[in-house]
Amino acid sequence: MHLLQKTLEAIKPIDRAVMAAAQREIDYCLKPPGSLGKLEDIARQIAGITGKVHNSIGKKAIVVMMADNGVYSEGVAMYPQDITRIGADFVTSGRMGVNFLANYAKADIIAVDIGIQVDVDLPKVLNRKIRYGTANFLKEPAMTREEAIRAVEVGIEVTNAAIDQGYDLIGTGEIGIGNTTASSAVLYAFTGAPIDRVVGRGAGLTDEAFARKKAVVQEAVRLHRPDPDDALDVLSKVGSLDIAGMAGTYLACAARRVPVLTDGLISNVAALVAMRLKPETVEYMIPSHISFEPGAKLLKEITGLEPMIDMDMRLGEGTGCALVFSIVEAALRMIEEMGTFAVIGKTRDEIGDHIMAYRGKFPR
Amino acid sequence: MHLLQKTLEAIKPIDRAVMAAAQREIDYCLKPPGSLGKLEDIARQIAGITGKVHNSIGKKAIVVMMADNGVYSEGVAMYPQDITRIGADFVTSGRMGVNFLANYAKADIIAVDIGIQVDVDLPKVLNRKIRYGTANFLKEPAMTREEAIRAVEVGIEVTNAAIDQGYDLIGTGEIGIGNTTASSAVLYAFTGAPIDRVVGRGAGLTDEAFARKKAVVQEAVRLHRPDPDDALDVLSKVGSLDIAGMAGTYLACAARRVPVLTDGLISNVAALVAMRLKPETVEYMIPSHISFEPGAKLLKEITGLEPMIDMDMRLGEGTGCALVFSIVEAALRMIEEMGTFAVIGKTRDEIGDHIMAYRGKFPR
Repeated sequence: MHLLQKTLEAIKPIDRAVMAAAQREIDYCLKPPGSLGKLEDIARQIAGITGKVHNSIGKKAIVVMMADNGVYSEGVAMYPQDITRIGADFVTSGRMGVNFLANYAKADIIAVDIGIQVDVDLPKVLNRKIRYGTANFLKEPAMTREEAIRAVEVGIEVTNAAIDQGYDLIGTGEIGIGNTTASSAVLYAFTGAPIDRVVGRGAGLTDEAFARKKAVVQEAVRLHRPDPDDALDVLSKVGSLDIAGMAGTYLACAARRVPVLTDGLISNVAALVAMRLKPETVEYMIPSHISFEPGAKLLKEITGLEPMIDMDMRLGEGTGCALVFSIVEAALRMIEEMGTFAVIGKTRDEIGDHIMAYRGKFPR
Repeated sequence: MHLLQKTLEAIKPIDRAVMAAAQREIDYCLKPPGSLGKLEDIARQIAGITGKVHNSIGKKAIVVMMADNGVYSEGVAMYPQDITRIGADFVTSGRMGVNFLANYAKADIIAVDIGIQVDVDLPKVLNRKIRYGTANFLKEPAMTREEAIRAVEVGIEVTNAAIDQGYDLIGTGEIGIGNTTASSAVLYAFTGAPIDRVVGRGAGLTDEAFARKKAVVQEAVRLHRPDPDDALDVLSKVGSLDIAGMAGTYLACAARRVPVLTDGLISNVAALVAMRLKPETVEYMIPSHISFEPGAKLLKEITGLEPMIDMDMRLGEGTGCALVFSIVEAALRMIEEMGTFAVIGKTRDEIGDHIMAYRGKFPR
């Protein structure tokens, strides 16, 4: 708890003054104000995060949390449970979806066993196992509160270590059969939203298994009555170890002032957990894609994180993050490389007046 | 007309058999079928375009068509008209929005003066001027039918030359004050859609100029009565030289079987012109972003091109293309680099049966 508490206390809002200074540079670029849309938002947000107007990315990593879910035994997943362990093998040998995308983006993968149900003896997998998978939360709480805290702290520790190694743009990913069920349960516990808004078909369920998944989520929340105002209660009763670890990644990035990308459903649920632990954490998050899962839309409304890309992807693993690394890096080149109104003899102040007049007329 | 006719005749549908073979490889990759969404679509489409299952991009270029619009004098644009000429200078000296994005993507810019209102003496600008800007189409047709054909052919010639130089992924861009008005007029002439669905604020109009822009579009179409079934009639009466040139780029790419990216409003209107000249052209187009302009949504419905990214961008120049080059390139790595079900001892045929069962259950 000490590390979690310390991390939460270290999280401050991003720097508004630096953001304003960055906006001034962005508006001095040769284009109509706001016309580069979310690229401008990213450049401004990262300035606020790092406290510097001029930014570039040195090293990128995707932290992939891997864990099993006891609720698997209720028939809520399509694939065999040992896919999690196999995934641990394949993601570290470069064969998963996230790998080719990360390779293209020149990003590294940091693979963490935070709760796979069997021992995983792979040199490139960090063994930070909290327990051998969660309990079946239809029968008993997924884990104890202490385990949930430790799992969040593992995320913090692993991410702090990555930041210490120079990674300055972090993506979040996961591998864990059954984890969309846990994600939906957490989302349902927080929001009480209609079940069709929180439960989707995951990796491709039959109609029967889909109905079962909805019933399981509803029954689990009814049984444990997690307190929606206590994120650790929700996490421990109906959550998962990978969600907890990812929440830790967000918190560490926010505390260390490093931009962090959200991925799909599970990653965004973890983002919501982190925000419930410390609301300012959201200011450090950059959304990537919108998942095909229905919960993704609800999460967007709650977190306010507006995805940049819509690729109908539903693979997880951090694939969305890997795909938008290039957009984030490109955005940072704007202030560095784009021509300014100086070439037509205008000062920043002259442009400032133009901008003020313009902003009144135009939505963005 | 000879070149245009020859090009139209050379355009054939993309290769369905190769697409099916590519899909078989995509489905053999270690992931739930369809879970990489539009990345899979891109890999399959490019296979159909090139006729090869295995693809990679060698050289990328954005062909930027630059021209002025006589309708500018009606007060439909926010910026001074000489911005087109200044843009020609800046885009070839690397200072525009499209430049930093193209640099990041390692793409080249091919800048074409297809109708700037003044002589442009810049070494990196291709002088393919058809005329010194279009006529004010509120008074007379924007250009003659012959000029429209020549402008399309300039697009074909310039793009053919680029393909001859080894460019195998092409983006479309434009610079031209007043060209959103021409785009809206072409869209309005083709569709007769409600005026609020086709006219937007361009680079940032006042309410007054916005109302004027709508009136101008409606009056021009009423005056010239372009035949919506004759794309060259529409283009010549209420179009622009840059739109015509961009239509030529699409046609050349389709005829030469090279994938081509659409950009924002103007680029998508040009795509629609190309499709009206030869419907199969759309099969060679890959959409990039959805523009902030209202017409973009209407165009999406008509062309069926579903944008990948939504960045609230409205700069044009080819900025959207530059931003998605990386997504297209990444998509092509899937078949090349991703692990297959062979590692768990499954053959393609065994996976094929699984896929068939799966497809029945799942929307994608």
